[in-house]
Amino acid sequence: MLVVGENISVVSKVVGDAIRERNAEPIIKMVKEQKDAGADYIDINIGPATKKGEELMQWLVKSIQDKVDTPLALDTKNVSAIQAGLEVHKGTAMINSVTGDKDKLDVLMPMAKKYNSKIVGIALTDKGVPPDVDSRVEIIMDIVNSALEYGVPMENLYLDPVVLPVAVLQEQVHNCIKALKVFKQLKELMALSDEPRTIVGLSNVSQSSPQELKSLLNRTYLLILLSQGLDSAIVDPLDKELMNAIKTYDILNNKILYAHSYLD
Amino acid sequence: MLVVGENISVVSKVVGDAIRERNAEPIIKMVKEQKDAGADYIDINIGPATKKGEELMQWLVKSIQDKVDTPLALDTKNVSAIQAGLEVHKGTAMINSVTGDKDKLDVLMPMAKKYNSKIVGIALTDKGVPPDVDSRVEIIMDIVNSALEYGVPMENLYLDPVVLPVAVLQEQVHNCIKALKVFKQLKELMALSDEPRTIVGLSNVSQSSPQELKSLLNRTYLLILLSQGLDSAIVDPLDKELMNAIKTYDILNNKILYAHSYLD
Repeated sequence: MLVVGENISVVSKVVGDAIRERNAEPIIKMVKEQKDAGADYIDINIGPATKKGEELMQWLVKSIQDKVDTPLALDTKNVSAIQAGLEVHKGTAMINSVTGDKDKLDVLMPMAKKYNSKIVGIALTDKGVPPDVDSRVEIIMDIVNSALEYGVPMENLYLDPVVLPVAVLQEQVHNCIKALKVFKQLKELMALSDEPRTIVGLSNVSQSSPQELKSLLNRTYLLILLSQGLDSAIVDPLDKELMNAIKTYDILNNKILYAHSYLD
Repeated sequence: MLVVGENISVVSKVVGDAIRERNAEPIIKMVKEQKDAGADYIDINIGPATKKGEELMQWLVKSIQDKVDTPLALDTKNVSAIQAGLEVHKGTAMINSVTGDKDKLDVLMPMAKKYNSKIVGIALTDKGVPPDVDSRVEIIMDIVNSALEYGVPMENLYLDPVVLPVAVLQEQVHNCIKALKVFKQLKELMALSDEPRTIVGLSNVSQSSPQELKSLLNRTYLLILLSQGLDSAIVDPLDKELMNAIKTYDILNNKILYAHSYLD
């Protein structure tokens, strides 16, 4: 499973301050912590970044990759900032994310192709959250078709069924599981030569839930989704119990060798 | 999910002493605790019980059901003791268990039919643990056919894919998940009118693992198996984290209504 660390986000005060002051140090510390905890990618969420997004993204990517050898997920609605980030990123970046809207797809898919980056396609449109499983599948099929059209290989396409808060939209949380099951059959359904990957933004499930429930909800949901074949998740890798659940999942599915010390 | 409490077992010193002294009190206390913690059935494992098994089983069933309103799973290799227990059991008992051996099936299936009890059919024979998924499925098909032959309804048949210790037989732990997936397709594969149920003896997975790993292994495995459609498990209902995982699974699958207080 590909682990994407979620902690570098402009909504965090530490990160927000660091970004405003162009002080990379606290951010680099957080990147290192997440990598050491097992993150394969580090998400950098700079928000809408309508002002100076390009310069900001390039500064962030360069500052981080100067000090830490890790690929990054470029996370903003500002398409030019994504482009600017890809220009300076070393290794295989991830674009997080593109919705099913044609105007977005026609810009971001060619970008993913050009820079050979991974790209998250999320089952949303600018009309909002789809009401049921079928409409998620429809949007995702548009995204897959766009990837095919622009020559983005399926191994670089990460389909996101949209995780929503169980405290607010419980039925949608179940719909997301059902949508994932369908996404895992797309290779067959769409007669694709390779299987597109799948991803979720996990922590959304516990948004608006009390702090003492969050980790339990997150890791239980992750195990349910992994059991349906989920390939990747954007998570807090510093949540020790979550990371232990992932390791235990791998042990029980015979993916890594059991030893009494497997958690150490 | 049907929760079967596993704690009344002759291998426990408290239970072993209580049985030898025909002192029901400590056993009744343990039955109540498990029921209060959420057990739907209470397993009573009296071991091989080659001597006076019939009298012992009847004493246990009557002593417990005199004081606690709960159905029991009668757990012994002694077939006459099972029969004796069924004679005095109130409500729908569970027979735990029958292997795929014809001589056992020809005795226990008619018994399950006569007393309208549930029966666990386990993917084992007297030759031991089957080496791969296919041989588990073969044994289980024999068990299903025997149930059909003797008129045991599928809703009373609980198929057990055999949980083994991950510390000793890691590959078999993965095989058990794969076998369960096939068991869940038996209605289609065997053109049955109803779906047989599924069950596991969960705690086996963490046998021989260090104490501090047991609960994590148990609950993670349970979530994986539930995600494949497992209907029932024999577990320690006093393991709070395990029971919380079950509740959280039900919440995330929209089976029970979410409230911030759902664990209370």
